[in-house]
Amino acid sequence: MSIKNLLIVSTSTVHGKGYLAYCEEAIQSFFSGIEEVIFIPYARPGGITHEEYTEVACKKFNELGFKMRGLHEFDNPIEAIENAKGIFTGGGNTFVLLDQLQKNNLIPAIQKKVSKGLRYMGTSAGSNITGLTVNTTNDMPIVHPESLNALALVPFNLNPHYLDPDPTSKHMGETRETRIKEFHAYNNQVVVGLREGSWLHVQDNKISLEGPLSARIFEKDKTPYELNPSDDFSFLLK
Amino acid sequence: MSIKNLLIVSTSTVHGKGYLAYCEEAIQSFFSGIEEVIFIPYARPGGITHEEYTEVACKKFNELGFKMRGLHEFDNPIEAIENAKGIFTGGGNTFVLLDQLQKNNLIPAIQKKVSKGLRYMGTSAGSNITGLTVNTTNDMPIVHPESLNALALVPFNLNPHYLDPDPTSKHMGETRETRIKEFHAYNNQVVVGLREGSWLHVQDNKISLEGPLSARIFEKDKTPYELNPSDDFSFLLK
Repeated sequence: MSIKNLLIVSTSTVHGKGYLAYCEEAIQSFFSGIEEVIFIPYARPGGITHEEYTEVACKKFNELGFKMRGLHEFDNPIEAIENAKGIFTGGGNTFVLLDQLQKNNLIPAIQKKVSKGLRYMGTSAGSNITGLTVNTTNDMPIVHPESLNALALVPFNLNPHYLDPDPTSKHMGETRETRIKEFHAYNNQVVVGLREGSWLHVQDNKISLEGPLSARIFEKDKTPYELNPSDDFSFLLK
Repeated sequence: MSIKNLLIVSTSTVHGKGYLAYCEEAIQSFFSGIEEVIFIPYARPGGITHEEYTEVACKKFNELGFKMRGLHEFDNPIEAIENAKGIFTGGGNTFVLLDQLQKNNLIPAIQKKVSKGLRYMGTSAGSNITGLTVNTTNDMPIVHPESLNALALVPFNLNPHYLDPDPTSKHMGETRETRIKEFHAYNNQVVVGLREGSWLHVQDNKISLEGPLSARIFEKDKTPYELNPSDDFSFLLK
């Protein structure tokens, strides 16, 4: 049986609250018993440096009672993953993040450790990469990774920061729903639209939606539909 | 001297008007004297077929007095480009569009013909690909082209459907401006944010912004700024 411990969080920050504030109890419980969490700062939100980004995450994790070091601080990042008990991958640009993971050959290392029980938490881009591929990211393709295949820690795709169409909008760019429909013209996997304020908790063969909101589920050739935190999400892991 | 005739349109449709209605005079004038325009339907908005998409464009172009055929109708699309006098590339998904152009080896054919005076019009994704690369598209990467290098008909990048930040929004996804700032952490070229209702007209060594709105210009390490239709855009072609 494969062991899995994943916290797949839509966004680090919800409107009006501090960094990771709305889900801090879930984080404390998820990493409970672990002394140090390794932070992967590769997604560089707004183009900030690895150091600047690690400082932000570190401050919050220290406050929650965990030590934290950035993966960029290690001479050998693969070895750092092999020795880690917990990882937090922050959001930013999904293409930049995936490109760095590929270039540092970290994908197999993370996959292997997760299958042995390493606790993995991601927000936004860090959640996107837990899916089969990042073909459903909202981010701008500012760099071009070799492949869009991701960590595949779950057998579906994510769309974090899922946004409902705004009926008052006069903007003609595609809605998120239209984009995911276009994705299904070329791809088959289920996409979970995870709204800001929601997260998925995967533990072994159980998966649940947490937070106050429903999630929107997109299956190829089906009308998209909503599932609530009380609903059964287990079909997603089959 | 290189000859160029380009109409780089932000969107096919503005809110409340029909397909290509707001810019129909510009289209008529741009393709004036040309009997038949070739339509490139590869971007497949909403996943519709090449046939369905060509029907939409054809209807409008016929109404404006032009014959039109879809590029997918030709046995040899490279030859069709070589024989064309005018091309219109419709919007949809930029990744799908670029991938198809690459797979059909059409990029050099279009570049060569444009340098000999072929008139090229694009909307949305069809405008994105006139830039150096499509790293500044807003679209979802639902397929993964070999490269993001585009037609490079102009020496800068485009961001069609440019959208100002909404000060009332509670959504935490990146604003367009933040995304383009992240782009400039890895890339050097100027990006032109082209709002819905605007288009660029390039003729030989002249370039002008048309439509009622200003455009937002993003240069690396500079504060973004606005240029109006009456301003001089010629620095963009240098």
